[in-house]
This record gives sequence, C-alpha cells and structure tokens, in this order.
Amino acid sequence: MAHAKPFSYEGSFAKGTPPARPRGAVRRGKYDFAVAYPDPASVPLDGLLESLKGALDDEGRDLAVYPHQQGYPPLREYIAQKLAETRDIHVSPDDIVLADGSSQPIHMVCEALLDPGDVVLTDDFVYSGTLGTLRRFQADIRGVPCDDQGMEPDALESVIKKAVSEGRRPKFMYLIPTFQNPQGWETPLERRQAIVGLSQRYDVPILEDDCYVDLRYEGEPVTSMHALDSTGRVMYVASFSKIIAPGMRLGYLTAPPEVLDRVITIKSGGGANQFTALAIHRFSTQLDDHIDEVNDIQRVKRDAMVAALGENFGSEATWSNPPGALFVWLQMAEDADLVSIRGNVLDIYDVGYNPGPLFAPDAASGRNRARLCFGYNTPDEIREGISRLAQAFEQEGVLKA
Amino acid sequence: MAHAKPFSYEGSFAKGTPPARPRGAVRRGKYDFAVAYPDPASVPLDGLLESLKGALDDEGRDLAVYPHQQGYPPLREYIAQKLAETRDIHVSPDDIVLADGSSQPIHMVCEALLDPGDVVLTDDFVYSGTLGTLRRFQADIRGVPCDDQGMEPDALESVIKKAVSEGRRPKFMYLIPTFQNPQGWETPLERRQAIVGLSQRYDVPILEDDCYVDLRYEGEPVTSMHALDSTGRVMYVASFSKIIAPGMRLGYLTAPPEVLDRVITIKSGGGANQFTALAIHRFSTQLDDHIDEVNDIQRVKRDAMVAALGENFGSEATWSNPPGALFVWLQMAEDADLVSIRGNVLDIYDVGYNPGPLFAPDAASGRNRARLCFGYNTPDEIREGISRLAQAFEQEGVLKA
Repeated sequence: MAHAKPFSYEGSFAKGTPPARPRGAVRRGKYDFAVAYPDPASVPLDGLLESLKGALDDEGRDLAVYPHQQGYPPLREYIAQKLAETRDIHVSPDDIVLADGSSQPIHMVCEALLDPGDVVLTDDFVYSGTLGTLRRFQADIRGVPCDDQGMEPDALESVIKKAVSEGRRPKFMYLIPTFQNPQGWETPLERRQAIVGLSQRYDVPILEDDCYVDLRYEGEPVTSMHALDSTGRVMYVASFSKIIAPGMRLGYLTAPPEVLDRVITIKSGGGANQFTALAIHRFSTQLDDHIDEVNDIQRVKRDAMVAALGENFGSEATWSNPPGALFVWLQMAEDADLVSIRGNVLDIYDVGYNPGPLFAPDAASGRNRARLCFGYNTPDEIREGISRLAQAFEQEGVLKA
Repeated sequence: MAHAKPFSYEGSFAKGTPPARPRGAVRRGKYDFAVAYPDPASVPLDGLLESLKGALDDEGRDLAVYPHQQGYPPLREYIAQKLAETRDIHVSPDDIVLADGSSQPIHMVCEALLDPGDVVLTDDFVYSGTLGTLRRFQADIRGVPCDDQGMEPDALESVIKKAVSEGRRPKFMYLIPTFQNPQGWETPLERRQAIVGLSQRYDVPILEDDCYVDLRYEGEPVTSMHALDSTGRVMYVASFSKIIAPGMRLGYLTAPPEVLDRVITIKSGGGANQFTALAIHRFSTQLDDHIDEVNDIQRVKRDAMVAALGENFGSEATWSNPPGALFVWLQMAEDADLVSIRGNVLDIYDVGYNPGPLFAPDAASGRNRARLCFGYNTPDEIREGISRLAQAFEQEGVLKA
C-alpha cells in the first residue's frame, strides 16, 4: 500500500458540480461596510442564555432525539403566529420548515425548481447570496429594471413575455420587497399588487424574501406579497439572522404543501438545529422588545452614515436613505470603478464595501455602485469610516478632492 | 387578482428532484428501539450551558458576524487534535468542514461526486440515512457481501471488477468500519488494510463514517481506515450527535483539498451553526470524561438488551453482541417477515424497531432482520420492551410460543 499513487478526484466530480472556489476566512476591514451584520453590541446574549436554560430544564433530554424534520414544532407555532400578526400571512405550523438561516430555504427552493438554463427573474441589483445559489443551479438569471419602488411592472411584463415567447416561462421571480438588498427601497402596496397580478396572469410564482422586514426605522408596514395572493403563487422565506444574530443560523420557509413535500426531501442535515431552536423559541417572548431596542440603535447608525455621506461625498454621488434594514446604496459617477480599487481601499484605509457587480445578475453591471452596511460599526466608527472612504476614493481618483 | 386560479407547481419541479414524501413527526413507541438515540438522561445539559455561557462571555458579540464557511476555527482545531490523538488522522483544521450532523457532510460528498447511475458500494446492510442520500442522487447502490468483520475482500474485488468491466468504476465505497450500523461489528486491522489496498489498486475512494467510534464498551481501538492510506483515497466523516446529542446537529468532514474545495460550494445554509459550535468547543475539555460516563451507562443497556434477548428469544433467533455503539442486529428464521408486522407491534405492544429492508441497498432484503437500539430506554424498559417484543412476535407467528 505504501506504493500506491496519489489519487486525483478531478475526473470524479458530478457533471453539475460547481467549480471549486477559494476557501478561507474573508478579509474584513475595521470599518466593515461590506457585510450586512446586525449591531454586535445588542446581540441578546443574556436573554438567549436564560432562554436556553429554561428550555433545557423543560425538555433538554429531548436533545437525545433527532429533531422533527420540519424543525422544533413550538418555534413553528410562534412563527405562524408572528406571520399572522405582522405579515397577514395565515398558515399552519405544518406549512413551515425551519432551516439554516434564510440561505438554506432559498437553496432548497432553487434545487427543487431549477434545471440548468431555467429562467429566474430578479431585481436589477439583488442579494449576492441568492445570485450565487441561482448560478450554482445554472439558472438563466434575468434582471428586471427597477425604480425606487421595485420592479417596474411594464418592464417585468416585457421580460416575462420575452421569456415565454422563447418557450422558457420563468420558473419564479425572487423579490425582497421590504428594504431591498442592496438598494434599500420598500415596494409600496400598489406596486406589490401589480407584481402579484403579473405573477398570477403569467403563472410565474414569487419567492418573497422578507428577512429585513422587522428592521423598520420609520413608516408603517406594508403587507407582504404572500398576503396579496391566495393562489399558492407566493413562497416566503425569512430569518432570525438580522433580528437575533446570523450565528444562530435559523430561518424558515412557508410554501404550498406540494413545494414543502419536495423541499423536505432535498434539505440536507436533518431537522433544523434543536439547541438553537429551543433558545430562540423561549426568547421569542422578548423578541418584540428586542427588535425595538435594536432598531433604535440601528436607526442612529443609518443616520450617521447618511449624514457622513452628505458631508464627505457632497454632490458627486447619490445614495439611498433607506427606511429600514442595514445598508445604503451608493452611486458614483458613471465612469467610476469601485471594483478595481476595492483591495486598495481595504488594505490602505481599512474600509470594506461590496461593489455593484456582486449584486448584478450579469455579475458585471454597476461598477460605479457599492453597498455600504452600517450595522456593524459604532456611529463614531461609521463617521470615521465614511471619511476614510472619501479620502480613499479621492486618492484613487473616483472622487474629486 | 381574486379571480386567479390556484397554481400547481407539479410541472415546475426540476428533473432530478426526488419524489415527495409524507411529512410529519415519526410515530414512536414507548420502547423505542427504532432509532439510534444516545442515552437521554446523560445529555450534558449543565456542561453545555456552562460552556456556552463562557463562550458567550468571551466572544458572543461575534454571533453578529456570519460564521466562517468551514465553521468555527477553534472547534476545528479541537477536532484536528482529537483525530490525531484517537484516530491517527493528521490533518490541519483547514482540512475540516463543520456541518449539520454527519448527514450533511455525507450529502455534500454524494452531491459532489454522483451523477445519476453512478455506482457506489456499501455493506450488505448499512445505515438507512446514507442509503436515502445515495438514492436521492440516483446512485446505483451495490451491496458487498459481509461477514462479521465487514466487507469480504474477495467479494469486494469481484464487485469492483464487475463494475469496472461494465465501464462503471464505482465512484466510492461507503463504510462504517467501527461498530457498523446496523450490524455492530468492528472491522479488524488486517481487514481494513485489505480493503484500503483494494481501494488503492482499483482507484475506488472510501467514505469512512466513524460516528460511533467513541462509544466503545470493551476492547482496544482499531486505527481508522484514513490512517492506513496516504494517497487521498479516504474521506472521513464523524459527528457529535452520538457523544453529545443529535439535537446539536454538528458533525464534520475531512477530505483532500480538492474535495473540500468542491463541497464548500455545495454546502447549503452558510457556515455551520456558531451558537452550537461555541458550546461544543468549550465543552470539549470535558468530553473525554463525558464519553466515559456515557459508555458506562450504555454498556449496561447493551448488556440488558442482549440478556433479555437470550431470555426471550432462546434458540429461535440470533443477534449481535456489539462491542460498541447503540444497536443489536436481530435475525429471525428465514421466513419471518418483520416488515409486515411492524405496525402491529408498535400499535399493540408499543415497541418500535427498524426492519432489515430499511438497511438494504435493494430496499427489499432482510425482512427477517431488525435493528434494535438500546440507547434511549432505561435497562428496565429494555427488559420489558424485549419481553413485549417476544410476545408480539409470538402473537404474529414469527416466534414459537
């Protein structure tokens, strides 16, 4: 056996396997505007620990048993109640599947529905994680032009008609109608109705990602797209990542039974993490208060970032002033290239951001745009970081000194 | 929109999507010999809670940050050290990926390597979860005849040669060499060497599942198959499910970098659950002691089950007396059908078991066999449950009164 040659797996991988990608920790800046983290100081550590202690006292022995394949039933009951109260979504706990964050439910839906080449519609710039999953299943991702309310209905109808005329009706459209990532807008009711109407007319289901909905800093909630449809065309995912912590890795999906029956067979790793589900379930009695506290903190951070952009970027850029969530969408002059200077800005100025192409269905558009997240740093750090970003942009020639 | 017709997804599912399967909680007996749970009373609740508290004090704020894609680095360091000390496996923490239980790593390997129709070799009866995953990827699963040491080398060579002669070299073989599930045997060193030799000669990699290795009730450890190969042919998965609790949903994979580079792109749900990883990492300092305690408890349970079988089943059955893990493999007369009576035994006698075909690559063989797990019930319950099982078998005509 000592003489056997090293084995190469290169010829052994399945045909559809995505290409390898570099592993390792992501390099982060001190001023970390790159990733949409919630406020670290307000992760409710004491509340989670007390909650977990209570749950383990009650039923910790059941950790010896494999979790229900759809996840801890009492947490699904809480979610059903929360969805009814806050999103006008009326489903049974049996219509909910818990999974790792929102990314695993999105993965499950993509895997259940997508063959290579299938058309999926998204906003013109949209969450990079979902784009990655769509690419992993070799979807033909088509961005729909958006204004500051979301997809433009006429444009959406054109894109659908074109796909249908090619014999390739879109498998679904993926939308983040509330505090869209990265653009920050909230789709108003009339626009939601128009989009749901097109979904129904053309039989293109919707995957609604509502993971930011609770992070509202002003204004009144707009009902979910799920609530505007009673035909089973809307699947809905959300998560505890942004209102408790991403490290909890717990999110959920509700969808028609025929979809859930399939995604359950696809979900890897068994029923969702019970240790975490126990803690979150018991903590849920405090969750509304926690969300209020977090929003007060994050509102101040948003204001700090928007003000700092005004002071440092003046009239040479435009940016969103989002009513919720964790990011500002920055747009520089058309010829600015925020992709090529990103490494320098991180190395020299310690400021991280994600440039536009990361959010583009074509992976190329939007080199003059960037998402700036304000959840992680303190308001003072945000002011300093934006000042550094402006210096960096001046140094790199994308902002006039 | 009120007039839109209900939408059916039936025509929308991807071609490879597995068929729907019924959802809902699994019905369990009071005498639950069906599933391989560890002892519920010894789930280390206080230790986990204290460990988590310490970890959250140290670095709980980092829950606001998305976990490393391979999972919490200090836990991977602990695993690397544990593998070196106990399994003679010498890998870096960077060669390890944390995931949900061992089932997600197994899923990842299958997804990375298997196209529909690819041949995979397994033992003649083997863990049903892996069979389910192999079927989900439409593998051509071929069982290799086993004796009480594992796959018979001559039989393995024949099966490999046959597949190769068909132009279908097996993509890998899946083995549980230590306390095999469900048969309970431990493959001795010479047999391991013979199997690794065939793996090397015929270029058929091994996926070694070592999730029971720490549950040893007697005898000296046999080194891992991974340690017997230096050519990259052995991938290795294990888990904290059986030594802490399944509800923690935390396991791991180590494999050559070219495999890890691929499976990382396949893993759904982001980096492994950090909340749980923090608790397990801090608890790891107590893990050896905990394993000793648990094994003392589970050894007594095994002895209780084996003794009760002797008292109740006499000479009409044979059963294993496993040196470790959580199950006894029962074999009744050739014509006994333990599949058709299973529902009655559960309903009337409150005793659960899993019959042979659940563990058979062809899903049909072994109707006269059953796996009886002894981890969940107390020794008294085990004695009562085995007595009831004998009564039930008599009533159903598969055991003489």
